[in-house]
Amino acid sequence: MCQLLGMNCNVPTDIVFSFTGFAMRGGSSDMHADGWGIAFFEGAGVRHFVDHEAAVSSQIADLIKRYPIKSKNVIAHIRKATQGRIALENCHPFVRELWGRYWVFAHNGDLKAFAPPLDGAFHPVGTTDSEWAFCYLLQELRRRFGTLAPPMPELADALRTLCAEIAAHGTFNMMLSDGSALFAHCSTKLHYIVRQYPFAVASLSDQELSVDFSEVTTPNDRVAVIVTEPLTTNETWLSFAPGELKVFVEGAPL
Amino acid sequence: MCQLLGMNCNVPTDIVFSFTGFAMRGGSSDMHADGWGIAFFEGAGVRHFVDHEAAVSSQIADLIKRYPIKSKNVIAHIRKATQGRIALENCHPFVRELWGRYWVFAHNGDLKAFAPPLDGAFHPVGTTDSEWAFCYLLQELRRRFGTLAPPMPELADALRTLCAEIAAHGTFNMMLSDGSALFAHCSTKLHYIVRQYPFAVASLSDQELSVDFSEVTTPNDRVAVIVTEPLTTNETWLSFAPGELKVFVEGAPL
Repeated sequence: MCQLLGMNCNVPTDIVFSFTGFAMRGGSSDMHADGWGIAFFEGAGVRHFVDHEAAVSSQIADLIKRYPIKSKNVIAHIRKATQGRIALENCHPFVRELWGRYWVFAHNGDLKAFAPPLDGAFHPVGTTDSEWAFCYLLQELRRRFGTLAPPMPELADALRTLCAEIAAHGTFNMMLSDGSALFAHCSTKLHYIVRQYPFAVASLSDQELSVDFSEVTTPNDRVAVIVTEPLTTNETWLSFAPGELKVFVEGAPL
Repeated sequence: MCQLLGMNCNVPTDIVFSFTGFAMRGGSSDMHADGWGIAFFEGAGVRHFVDHEAAVSSQIADLIKRYPIKSKNVIAHIRKATQGRIALENCHPFVRELWGRYWVFAHNGDLKAFAPPLDGAFHPVGTTDSEWAFCYLLQELRRRFGTLAPPMPELADALRTLCAEIAAHGTFNMMLSDGSALFAHCSTKLHYIVRQYPFAVASLSDQELSVDFSEVTTPNDRVAVIVTEPLTTNETWLSFAPGELKVFVEGAPL
């Protein structure tokens, strides 16, 4: 299995604090050492970093921890291989383009006997069940809505239906973003928190590190962090219900 | 205008030496300071780094210069904006998936009145003529060959025809790779060199730096480097003819 981390904000925010704790689980405080990846939207563009080394010892992960890239939508993943060998092409998150936007996807879980037909519009490069599910999701969105993106309520409804269909084949905790919203589906385990004014001190659970968010924010900032297991010891994280899809926009669930 | 750098090898090789000289042109020895990018194939996977900062001062470019990523196919680009504002989504190289492989593309030049219809299979995210040309190339390849990749001679012929069609609209120096071959089309300016046994010392033209390739290679290694302007002062670079498409496989032109 793997772990997921997502962030959705109303102003571009860096993820250094959360990623620092999360990356410790990639080979130090937990055993997800079979590669990792992170994708940051920056306007319509995406910065995409993947590595088949353990996050805890990766030079690229080290850069991410030192270099504050500001983004309104971020998805990160640390991998414990279940299906697909340890290789760069099997590292999440995956990126594809649909409707002139990049889509970023990461998955935690294991799908059994899941290989719906793909028409070739989106085809996996690697050998994971996760990338197959991502290609299927985008294929079905294009099939339903054609070459133009639908309004958000219709998009969310379609994703809800498709996630339920995929989750029937196993565990399907996933995060998906097109740079304007972050969609998170919980099959078994997902937590989130919304940080907003008045901001307080947060302390990581995987490393001795605290940050006083009141010193690095303005009163208008709002940041939602979504993660497999809570990242801090002194904040109240909310659980997703099994089967729930939440849509985060501008730092809060819709 | 922009500058292009490509490398195609028979064994995974790092591009630190060539990239170090090339990156100097991104704001120091030359004025291509409107962003840069580089993509490395690693097996079927791609490491893709883009930045809208000047290559000469970018922290991510600094990592690339220090951290030897080994690859058989690399494409890099430094940008002097002509069409499309300075933004991450307008930084080359661009990446898309076709036939279950990633395709990496970068362009030097300027296309006038070039906006052929796109059917939605591949749609630009940014606003450059370059990304439009890339989407058109992939769309036309899929239209001709369907959902399965053709043999190399047919693929090269199709690319030759498509490049000539696009180059009728302006300057179209470009590099394209699917991880197995590197296709380079020259409209006005492109040079290449094949380094193989016996290896010698090479000296950069943009920075005081030399490397003795005999110390870092084996006699079986073969590396083709393709670039807008020659990178070294003491080697013989060969010019492409205008309108020429070359296909590099395993470190040599076919």
